Amino acid sequence: MALPAQGRTLLKTTDLESLRTQLREFAAARDWDQFHSPKNLAMALSSEAGELLEIFRWLTEEESRRLDPKAQAAASEEIADVLLFLVRLADKLGVDPVAAAERKLADNAEKYPVEKSKGSSKKYNEL
Amino acid sequence: MALPAQGRTLLKTTDLESLRTQLREFAAARDWDQFHSPKNLAMALSSEAGELLEIFRWLTEEESRRLDPKAQAAASEEIADVLLFLVRLADKLGVDPVAAAERKLADNAEKYPVEKSKGSSKKYNEL
Amino acid sequence: MALPAQGRTLLKTTDLESLRTQLREFAAARDWDQFHSPKNLAMALSSEAGELLEIFRWLTEEESRRLDPKAQAAASEEIADVLLFLVRLADKLGVDPVAAAERKLADNAEKYPVEKSKGSSKKYNEL
Amino acid sequence: MALPAQGRTLLKTTDLESLRTQLREFAAARDWDQFHSPKNLAMALSSEAGELLEIFRWLTEEESRRLDPKAQAAASEEIADVLLFLVRLADKLGVDPVAAAERKLADNAEKYPVEKSKGSSKKYNEL
Repeated sequence: MALPAQGRTLLKTTDLESLRTQLREFAAARDWDQFHSPKNLAMALSSEAGELLEIFRWLTEEESRRLDPKAQAAASEEIADVLLFLVRLADKLGVDPVAAAERKLADNAEKYPVEKSKGSSKKYNEL
Repeated sequence: MALPAQGRTLLKTTDLESLRTQLREFAAARDWDQFHSPKNLAMALSSEAGELLEIFRWLTEEESRRLDPKAQAAASEEIADVLLFLVRLADKLGVDPVAAAERKLADNAEKYPVEKSKGSSKKYNEL
Repeated sequence: MALPAQGRTLLKTTDLESLRTQLREFAAARDWDQFHSPKNLAMALSSEAGELLEIFRWLTEEESRRLDPKAQAAASEEIADVLLFLVRLADKLGVDPVAAAERKLADNAEKYPVEKSKGSSKKYNEL
Repeated sequence: MALPAQGRTLLKTTDLESLRTQLREFAAARDWDQFHSPKNLAMALSSEAGELLEIFRWLTEEESRRLDPKAQAAASEEIADVLLFLVRLADKLGVDPVAAAERKLADNAEKYPVEKSKGSSKKYNEL
């Protein structure tokens, strides 16, 4: 049985595609495409990743597993910022981030075979 | 007319949820959860963002808009790495990255009203 | 008693000033000043900081206190890269990095009075 | 003619050694050595590098060469933060940052011979 038209449409519009469209409209309305070169977007992404890092720098690993509400809210905001710049950068470069991630997962499965990498944090070229 | 069962299931499993599941299985099979504290994942994400940055550091903005095939492939790989660590970190923190990004977009629409921010790269508190 | 001429000269040429001079000559000989805008140098510095981070991401804090020789050598190289780009960026901006650091230390001594900050990793505005 | 005692002392205490000593005393007075693992210091350094990056992300290269007074002051502060964490990290790892930078400069002179790298921003392995 065929999927109804509405179903097919929804299936094709993923969450990241929706963010991508909203970001395009956001930038176009503000005439911001002039600032959104891939170079600048990579800088923005990296500085947001630095803000994410800042939340964790003096916490133990154990503390980082159970953040207090304030740190949790801050981490959620920085994750959002990183994702937004990542989607925007990928759009400007014509990269499909999910397809790229799927390829990388497949590569990693080959680089890190279970029997060799189990319980080890070594890099694949040192296994 | 109701959506068939298969359609509903697919609609609920978004791309990022699928990556999240695959990453969980990948880590579990390799006994890597011990290394995947939010602190460590934030470090991994940030170091991958640094590798993304490296691709662009000596390029002009104009050159960054038309990467040669080698740089394009490298950028695609680093985008994948950032996305994978972002999804994994969000999973460990119990954050829904897409919902967080949607909230941030709504916040940004308020912080940067079109009439004030048009054509300007100033921060909202300097507009 | 006055300091002899040679002594005065040596006293004025600090380690960082010597690095600064060497970096100027290095760049001039290769016609690299065109690439060394503060924007690009900040990117280079940040991507090297990301490489430093990569060394530590899966180590426990305890392991990071006693690196194996390979990681120690890698950390030393990345520290060098960060310092070189920092000196170069400061030079291009006309900032004296040591004077700036001395001012920051004085600020921090005020922001973090011993009695309030002893044994705490809280930020000054949360003390 | 021998250098007077005062001259010799000053000559041996470089700027970075003085910062190192001050940072040791600062941390000891506040019982902060417990937080200053190399892992945490690398995170702190990288998040400060991200703040430096933030200043430049929407500026053109040309604008980054002539910062307005506010951005200039902010850049100076972030350069200070990066330098302080770099000196502290190097101290904790037992690395002499200036000696490491001198070695790196010598390496780079070999990797980037003038005749091959003149006017080119290519990486040494692509020259």
